[in-house]
Amino acid sequence: MTTPSIDDIEAAAMRIRPHVRRTPVLRSEALDAATGAEIFVKAECLQRFGAFKARGAFSKLTALDPDTRARGVLAFSSGNHAQAVAGAAATFGAPAVIVMPADAPRVKIANTRALGGEVVLYDRIRENRESIGAEIAQARGLTVVKPFDDPLVIAGQGTAGLELAEEAGRLDFAIAPASGGGLVGGLAVALGARSPGVRVYAAEPQGHDDIVRSLASGAMERNAPGVRSICDALLSESMGAYTWPIARACLAGAVAVCDADVRAAMRFAFSHLRIVLEPGGAIALAALLTGALDVRGRRVGVVASGGNVDPAEFARVLTEA
Amino acid sequence: MTTPSIDDIEAAAMRIRPHVRRTPVLRSEALDAATGAEIFVKAECLQRFGAFKARGAFSKLTALDPDTRARGVLAFSSGNHAQAVAGAAATFGAPAVIVMPADAPRVKIANTRALGGEVVLYDRIRENRESIGAEIAQARGLTVVKPFDDPLVIAGQGTAGLELAEEAGRLDFAIAPASGGGLVGGLAVALGARSPGVRVYAAEPQGHDDIVRSLASGAMERNAPGVRSICDALLSESMGAYTWPIARACLAGAVAVCDADVRAAMRFAFSHLRIVLEPGGAIALAALLTGALDVRGRRVGVVASGGNVDPAEFARVLTEA
Repeated sequence: MTTPSIDDIEAAAMRIRPHVRRTPVLRSEALDAATGAEIFVKAECLQRFGAFKARGAFSKLTALDPDTRARGVLAFSSGNHAQAVAGAAATFGAPAVIVMPADAPRVKIANTRALGGEVVLYDRIRENRESIGAEIAQARGLTVVKPFDDPLVIAGQGTAGLELAEEAGRLDFAIAPASGGGLVGGLAVALGARSPGVRVYAAEPQGHDDIVRSLASGAMERNAPGVRSICDALLSESMGAYTWPIARACLAGAVAVCDADVRAAMRFAFSHLRIVLEPGGAIALAALLTGALDVRGRRVGVVASGGNVDPAEFARVLTEA
Repeated sequence: MTTPSIDDIEAAAMRIRPHVRRTPVLRSEALDAATGAEIFVKAECLQRFGAFKARGAFSKLTALDPDTRARGVLAFSSGNHAQAVAGAAATFGAPAVIVMPADAPRVKIANTRALGGEVVLYDRIRENRESIGAEIAQARGLTVVKPFDDPLVIAGQGTAGLELAEEAGRLDFAIAPASGGGLVGGLAVALGARSPGVRVYAAEPQGHDDIVRSLASGAMERNAPGVRSICDALLSESMGAYTWPIARACLAGAVAVCDADVRAAMRFAFSHLRIVLEPGGAIALAALLTGALDVRGRRVGVVASGGNVDPAEFARVLTEA
């Protein structure tokens, strides 16, 4: 498979239908008033395991031949992909080894273990998760389920775009949280087919803005190692061999958002949408609320991509304002 | 109109369809595991104005003749009904006076004003909101929109039950937060028609358990004035002339829940459903999580009725455990 087409996304939607939820598209008078637009919020925080990652994980696992799948899978992930792969593997009775950074939110590590995942922690700064993962996978005969750079995973994430288009109708703009580019890439392919002319944007953490820089330079840029952001889910080193070509071909642009604006968007979602968003899950909403894109008078889809956040961190965000 | 029938609820559903949201029914592996049942969560915190009250308010306002409606409406409410009536009146360009207790959550008072409501505060302990409201309504020619004891309001709240039955199919049990009894009464009538044999329960604050006592004595009991609970939305003095007969005829029982269990349910909803629930909105979920009802192996509907809560209070609840 090369980069996924709309047919691949539709096929993924058929495969994963028994396993994932059709998440609601939320509307909010307060959000429309704050942006001057009609905003359609795809609430993937209400997805199984609390994030859109369930789509890609089930897309991959349902496409594996049963014998391969039964031997088990391995994932490296800061948390949401970890939970999704552990949960999806458990569905099929397959073992799952999850390589996670030691500084991942405790709730994500705990949830991954609760879903039956065997967690291997690594040091985000000093160690390379890909090499740790590859070593274990080879030794134990496990299939690696990449967090984004796999056409089946990208096609799975794109199913959120199919549903968004079905609920919201024609969209002028769409924006999604981005790091590896699997979600925003799948979204761009799905909406490009379902809502021709839509302008799809990536939202990424300030200081970790490789997509902004890549679109500007025309070459796939990387982030310096060790950059920190409140958005723990959005700290991939770079896009990948499949996601970068999609981003280059399909994205209208990318927006970098600072941590303070992300926290404000988490509070907005709490007060006006009554949903729990983790920082990375709120960053696309934040990009709209800051006015970084001029969407006035337009129909805009935004993905609220996940809601796995430690209670203590969420409480700090709520009370800082 | 006497107490509302399933026909009245269906008629309300038709009238309010353009004005309210069809809220999602959420599922959670963690919730099923914690209760040993299949739980279907009707997420009315995702309703317009953050609570199910939009249903009753629009049911009433859409049934008024346009001239009467244009003169304006008045409501007395601790908050969620206030916001719903203010928002519904604004939809029709009608003035709304809202009589609220001075100790209502600030977010509810602020939201009511933001929706165009003229807020009149009173002292919950020393003053009688009905007499304050009646006086203003008479002087200004306003129609009083009661928070629960009106067949049109009860029929509106019952529309949540229609939707729950459509999404969840046959239910063995259902439980909803209750104080005046409008929501649980409408739910009982709707589910009684759509899921015959269902056992519908009310969940109410410990110490404010007039429904438990009324069902036991066979007469409508009252709560002592001045009882406090974290569930600010559930502090009505008693049921009413329409809701008590429904409760007596249709409820299988009522469960009183302490504040600590309500707070635990708010945390559970945060972590596992990723929704924001106010205390009163979480009390039916709390009743299930405490095991007060034996629902093991059953299909159970629960209404998560509202999500309007001050950020500081929510942060305290998150961090106390």
